Amino acid sequence: MAEELIGNCLVAQSGGPTAVINASVAGVVTEALNNPCIEEIFGGMNGVLGILKEDLIDLAEESQQNIRGLRYTPASALGTCRFKLKRDQDYERVLEVFEAHNIRYFFYAGGNDSQDTADKISKLAQEKNYELRVIGVPKTIDNDLVTTDHCPGYGSVVKYICTTIRETALDHEAMGQHDLVSIVEVMGRNAGWIAAGATLAKGKDNPDDAPHLIYLPELPFSKEQFIDDVQRVLKKNKYCLVVVGEGLQDNDGNYVANSTNAQDAFGHQQLGGIGDFLAGLVEENLAVKARSSKLGTGQRAAAHCSSQTDNDEAFMAGCAAVKAAVAGETDQMVILVRAEGETYSCETSLAPLSEIANGVKEIPADWISEDRVSMTAKFIKYCQPLIQGEVQVPYENGVPAYVRLSKKRIRKVLDSHSFES
Amino acid sequence: MAEELIGNCLVAQSGGPTAVINASVAGVVTEALNNPCIEEIFGGMNGVLGILKEDLIDLAEESQQNIRGLRYTPASALGTCRFKLKRDQDYERVLEVFEAHNIRYFFYAGGNDSQDTADKISKLAQEKNYELRVIGVPKTIDNDLVTTDHCPGYGSVVKYICTTIRETALDHEAMGQHDLVSIVEVMGRNAGWIAAGATLAKGKDNPDDAPHLIYLPELPFSKEQFIDDVQRVLKKNKYCLVVVGEGLQDNDGNYVANSTNAQDAFGHQQLGGIGDFLAGLVEENLAVKARSSKLGTGQRAAAHCSSQTDNDEAFMAGCAAVKAAVAGETDQMVILVRAEGETYSCETSLAPLSEIANGVKEIPADWISEDRVSMTAKFIKYCQPLIQGEVQVPYENGVPAYVRLSKKRIRKVLDSHSFES
Repeated sequence: MAEELIGNCLVAQSGGPTAVINASVAGVVTEALNNPCIEEIFGGMNGVLGILKEDLIDLAEESQQNIRGLRYTPASALGTCRFKLKRDQDYERVLEVFEAHNIRYFFYAGGNDSQDTADKISKLAQEKNYELRVIGVPKTIDNDLVTTDHCPGYGSVVKYICTTIRETALDHEAMGQHDLVSIVEVMGRNAGWIAAGATLAKGKDNPDDAPHLIYLPELPFSKEQFIDDVQRVLKKNKYCLVVVGEGLQDNDGNYVANSTNAQDAFGHQQLGGIGDFLAGLVEENLAVKARSSKLGTGQRAAAHCSSQTDNDEAFMAGCAAVKAAVAGETDQMVILVRAEGETYSCETSLAPLSEIANGVKEIPADWISEDRVSMTAKFIKYCQPLIQGEVQVPYENGVPAYVRLSKKRIRKVLDSHSFES
Repeated sequence: MAEELIGNCLVAQSGGPTAVINASVAGVVTEALNNPCIEEIFGGMNGVLGILKEDLIDLAEESQQNIRGLRYTPASALGTCRFKLKRDQDYERVLEVFEAHNIRYFFYAGGNDSQDTADKISKLAQEKNYELRVIGVPKTIDNDLVTTDHCPGYGSVVKYICTTIRETALDHEAMGQHDLVSIVEVMGRNAGWIAAGATLAKGKDNPDDAPHLIYLPELPFSKEQFIDDVQRVLKKNKYCLVVVGEGLQDNDGNYVANSTNAQDAFGHQQLGGIGDFLAGLVEENLAVKARSSKLGTGQRAAAHCSSQTDNDEAFMAGCAAVKAAVAGETDQMVILVRAEGETYSCETSLAPLSEIANGVKEIPADWISEDRVSMTAKFIKYCQPLIQGEVQVPYENGVPAYVRLSKKRIRKVLDSHSFES
């Protein structure tokens, strides 16, 4: 057993929000309250940005209702950021803020860029002999973190997309006359995990159910092959529902549709418009009507249609982070480990932050069918358990009643720090 | 009391599907079973198209589970069409089919084009002395039928859009740094009822909640005014969420965004792309990031997030249609009548089909705020009750378990009829 480390804890959220990242914060807060060595429970506003600004809130001051409400409230209740710490003085500022508020436990919920930040903070603290335990909490709808079986946030976005596709498909089925090609554009910059998950919209005994074609960013896109694929489906079905990940690339690795050249703070290109692009291709090349939907930001925030399994695991990951830190672990991220056997169950373990920071988990080649546009039974076996169970969100006046934190600010004790945002 | 008319009934669905039009069919079937004067209960496949083709199914053969399942299954279980009867011989064919199958009751669920068709069939039957009772069942997400207080289908699409906007808004709120303009494109060709309904996403005591700007097709769109509106919002809030109806028009009545020139069978232009268009305007004119979502077909089929009030009323309208016909009424549509008083309640009545066929219900001028981009308390009072209550759909394997009818075909007795589709 590690020596008891007495001090305050800080939890913050980073990167794109999800339907369940607040459940992880609820897990951290709930478990922190169980451990007397953790004195104060602070929240950092907008990820590292709030730490740089010494913009901290007192999470222990929040009502129990609010913390309970985080369990089903989507997006990032503490605010989030895509800000990347670049300069040494910014990292040093983080430690300065931690020291000023006696923060000894730091829990950072985010994807690989965020875990990279957490790793560097942890390394710097070791270098400076500042006793700090840093544990990452996995979060990403993209499901692309290595070492963890899957990521909290993924199951919920898949459940929502599958629900939407099943409903959209029933609508298309109902239309009497014409061939129709319907493109549904989903998130997923480099990894096609989200698009792949859409396969679960198919009924068990209905191989002709939508989606009929799934295009993954992993596989180079060919216009000719796409038109052939659509024609093949339309020979059999009166409509063709296509799911496409936003980051579809051609043979040379260029994005097929790239409406703007904007880049985010991490140098990733901002994407959009592949759905309209494919619809255009269909109308140019085939005498059929094409429609597109772009589910947009709503898909990653759709708590009203989120997975109970995902939600429970997100909460569990938050709790596990605190337990690990209290037990003396640091510089690790909580990972989800699937038990062997036919019945799905999942436990937590740990993996080094540096490992997470530098990897991207790809879909195994044999989880993609030879036709390149559908998923094998192995993928379905992997993904199916992640969307099970329905989170019941409370409604008020006909609309989900989500919580907003009261956000009681911690008094600043440092001078302000200048940084480039 | 009218003379008892003994014979078979036919129910069919027409126009764009909704989340609750099947609930209306369930109402027709359920009530028809209560009336011994109705012998057989037929369903017409794909609206009038199936009638022309003598493509009828035996609804009494469906399992009770299936009929119960229609209560929460979106889209049109009988299939639908946008086919417009144009020629005299097509109308005569309809009567021929009715006569061949002794159909004496015809229930047609649809919008104003469909009620126009029903009206003409009814008039022709009278002219030919074929005893037939025709009752329309109102259906349209667009909420633009006259005489009825509102239309089944509308409350559910509004509930889904408000849920999506509230979730999307939480996501935007969570982002730390930049101004963001987020455009959500919703359905609504000529009437802005759907876009207007999005106002219910606002919290009661949070006037700064999204949506911040609502653009209705009723009001001529000005680019300059739009940019001014967005700038005004961004002075106060760090993001601006815009809801826009797809059919936005300029001063001359031209569609602002019209990606294709395709027209549907009724001569309406097929629309798309106003969301991307507005996002483009923002990025060209203001130094802020803009994103757009196009909810697409899924919005009108989102039974997983549908209104119990809407669902109950759709079922009630189906029942009422049968009751009216059995009581001797014909050439009428069921309408919903809101009771006076503070507490919402709703009954059914009847209005002539011809009146429905030729009218379009507009949003009253004093339900739109003077700023042109928000709704007044009068609109909110009207719309709020329509989205109350949550339909609980059953899930199987993590995805809603909707029903498909078994569709036992009725034996054809006529020669086939040629028509232009």
